[in-house]
Amino acid sequence: MNIPRTSYPRVVIIGGGFAGIALAKKLSKQEVQVVLLDKNNYHTFQPLLYQVSTGGLEPDSIAYPIRKVLKDFPNFYFRLANVEEIDTAKNKVKTNIGNLKFDYLVIASGSVTNYFGNSDIEKHSMAMKTIPQSLNLRSLILENFEDALLTSDLNERNALMNFVIVGGGPTGVELAGALAEIKKGILPKDYPDLDTRLAQIHVVQSGDCILKGMSAKASQKAEDFLEKLGVNIWKHVRVTNYDGKTVTTDTDLTFETATLIWAAGVKGATIKGLDSSDFITRGHRIDVNAFSQVKGFHHIFAIGDVAYMQTKDFSDGLPMMAQPAIQQGEQLGDNLLNLIEGKPLKAFTYKDKGAMATIGRNKAVVDLKKWKFQGVFAWYVWMFVHLFFLIGFRNRMVVFINWVYNYVRFDREARLIIRPFKKRHP
Amino acid sequence: MNIPRTSYPRVVIIGGGFAGIALAKKLSKQEVQVVLLDKNNYHTFQPLLYQVSTGGLEPDSIAYPIRKVLKDFPNFYFRLANVEEIDTAKNKVKTNIGNLKFDYLVIASGSVTNYFGNSDIEKHSMAMKTIPQSLNLRSLILENFEDALLTSDLNERNALMNFVIVGGGPTGVELAGALAEIKKGILPKDYPDLDTRLAQIHVVQSGDCILKGMSAKASQKAEDFLEKLGVNIWKHVRVTNYDGKTVTTDTDLTFETATLIWAAGVKGATIKGLDSSDFITRGHRIDVNAFSQVKGFHHIFAIGDVAYMQTKDFSDGLPMMAQPAIQQGEQLGDNLLNLIEGKPLKAFTYKDKGAMATIGRNKAVVDLKKWKFQGVFAWYVWMFVHLFFLIGFRNRMVVFINWVYNYVRFDREARLIIRPFKKRHP
Repeated sequence: MNIPRTSYPRVVIIGGGFAGIALAKKLSKQEVQVVLLDKNNYHTFQPLLYQVSTGGLEPDSIAYPIRKVLKDFPNFYFRLANVEEIDTAKNKVKTNIGNLKFDYLVIASGSVTNYFGNSDIEKHSMAMKTIPQSLNLRSLILENFEDALLTSDLNERNALMNFVIVGGGPTGVELAGALAEIKKGILPKDYPDLDTRLAQIHVVQSGDCILKGMSAKASQKAEDFLEKLGVNIWKHVRVTNYDGKTVTTDTDLTFETATLIWAAGVKGATIKGLDSSDFITRGHRIDVNAFSQVKGFHHIFAIGDVAYMQTKDFSDGLPMMAQPAIQQGEQLGDNLLNLIEGKPLKAFTYKDKGAMATIGRNKAVVDLKKWKFQGVFAWYVWMFVHLFFLIGFRNRMVVFINWVYNYVRFDREARLIIRPFKKRHP
Repeated sequence: MNIPRTSYPRVVIIGGGFAGIALAKKLSKQEVQVVLLDKNNYHTFQPLLYQVSTGGLEPDSIAYPIRKVLKDFPNFYFRLANVEEIDTAKNKVKTNIGNLKFDYLVIASGSVTNYFGNSDIEKHSMAMKTIPQSLNLRSLILENFEDALLTSDLNERNALMNFVIVGGGPTGVELAGALAEIKKGILPKDYPDLDTRLAQIHVVQSGDCILKGMSAKASQKAEDFLEKLGVNIWKHVRVTNYDGKTVTTDTDLTFETATLIWAAGVKGATIKGLDSSDFITRGHRIDVNAFSQVKGFHHIFAIGDVAYMQTKDFSDGLPMMAQPAIQQGEQLGDNLLNLIEGKPLKAFTYKDKGAMATIGRNKAVVDLKKWKFQGVFAWYVWMFVHLFFLIGFRNRMVVFINWVYNYVRFDREARLIIRPFKKRHP
């Protein structure tokens, strides 16, 4: 890769997610050369992907050009690249566009969907971790409704209008709520000749509650909200397979559906060279110490979802969410400079700012450290926080306009099949 | 197709473009059953496609769900369908989702890119007639810049940064202007390690002026604007071939480029069954009389781009633009009702509201009937008119926000490679 060597030490960051961008910003005006690699030319605001899938937001408003983040930073280079391997012996990353030497390496590659080895589910289900995936899901949902109109086979129509979401975490809950609102607000208007009662939304959850990481109150209230919206919640049920038609579970329960959305788990997006059992631990994440250092290296780090860092309060590792990623990125920025200057490193401490999830219009749950609340006010807080963390003034404005419009009009206008999914995946 | 027969006569409309939607609105509260067929579930506001291609707008803001247009209309049916054939003997259309009988048929299928039989150009060039095409072009432009960074071969880098637009009509001119602004405003910031002087934009035009349909003043001024922006205009040059690398012309001139944008012509999107020389005339359009009737039929009509209608002022047929399409749609709505009620039909008269094109920031040309003007004020008029004709309050708001943002910040934030083009078309 033709990036000039300068007298500054070179920091290579793999991934422009929350962690990578937070780190880059910290290093923006320092005496280091930074090379950021990502397989996309944009940062994705993952918490709002479900709104893209359900036609509430345009994909471009939750993406932000990485080059624009870096544009005023001297000594910064971005390359659109897939990192294929890390050569720790030679301090080199291998990518599809060539090799690159590093002095310091930061792995911020995030996470990917975890199918727990089930290739049938991987093949037939929909995921929602990236913008193209979310657009595929949007297309599929709308294509299903169109196809439901055409068939005279009631079983087929049922299957087309049946949505099974596996996983009761924030993604599953937020998607279920949005689908329920489409059923209530959009379907009867757009498809007057379709019996919208057929549209069923199921959330299947292997544990005994939804939103497991949150408080019992939040979990219960979210369940109440979803049930009020007509969502069916199945607890203590583990999905065992899906062949594109029938979902089987470890109980007697089965579902006939054309759409299985797999939100049951993620795992670290590890990279060859650092993916052996020496480095990988629980959740397929890279084990790091309190300085984000990968075991055995002083100059190789992992932050964000891909990093497994234990703390006093999180003995199972910090949650795979935006907040730990951002805080680790910022902290590592300081520590890298300390390391370069020969100063001692500071151990990471996680400031838990709480968690939140939205279920639908006027319905959200918020857990702050000292205050847990649910309902309308929680919903406003949820919106405010998400707007605040969205990168870019234009994105904020456009998302805000869409939200106000959707709220006032009970609408979601981005119900567009721009690239049909079924045609490409028959 | 399972659409119930009622006592109302059935009007089948093929196409939800400007013409089809204008007609549907006219028939919204009448005693007819309307079935609208389109291969997309959205209406596309084609005049702004070039802004999607150049990262100025999000695709979703220039698309509008057809079902939402029709939602308050009784007796309206929409089906997502490709019409494959028209059976005029049996009054039936054949589609990929089944057959449908009609009492009245309106062909409003628009136009497609005309390659004039050159399959090499068709294969290797980019078109900009649909939203997916525009997104492909957006991806390609950005991928080219990314690739230009990687190569050390100067010829290759030149080709990657060389953009050849064939056709000096509104599409070609507006795209050239937008690319020139990207070269000036975005490239130096996003790609500081790329010599942006290499980025060349060419408009190749076989005739002796650009914006042929407009006034000589508008044409000259548009040329001045483009030249001021650094665009190279080649007149009296006809592109003869493109093999993916070299553009050849009927002169000594050749271009080495990775991107040829073909905006040199469109032709009627005719449909089997009405595509013989009995019906098709100049521009591969369906010959219609002053009532939009297809020759030989009293109950089959064609409107918009696909229809070739001669008028006193337009002996070569009305231009393939939004205005004739909208006016024909509205007029046909009245005439259909006249026909059903046994009243005499009214001949179409075209109210020429003029034409306009934008070249860039503060630069547009407007030809009204009695007043022709260019520059800043023309640019405001252009924006106002386009906002006004855009369907949907949300779309207008979002486009407006984007324009204000882009204007104030000299920016285009939707420079996102959501679905890489080169990877899919190696």
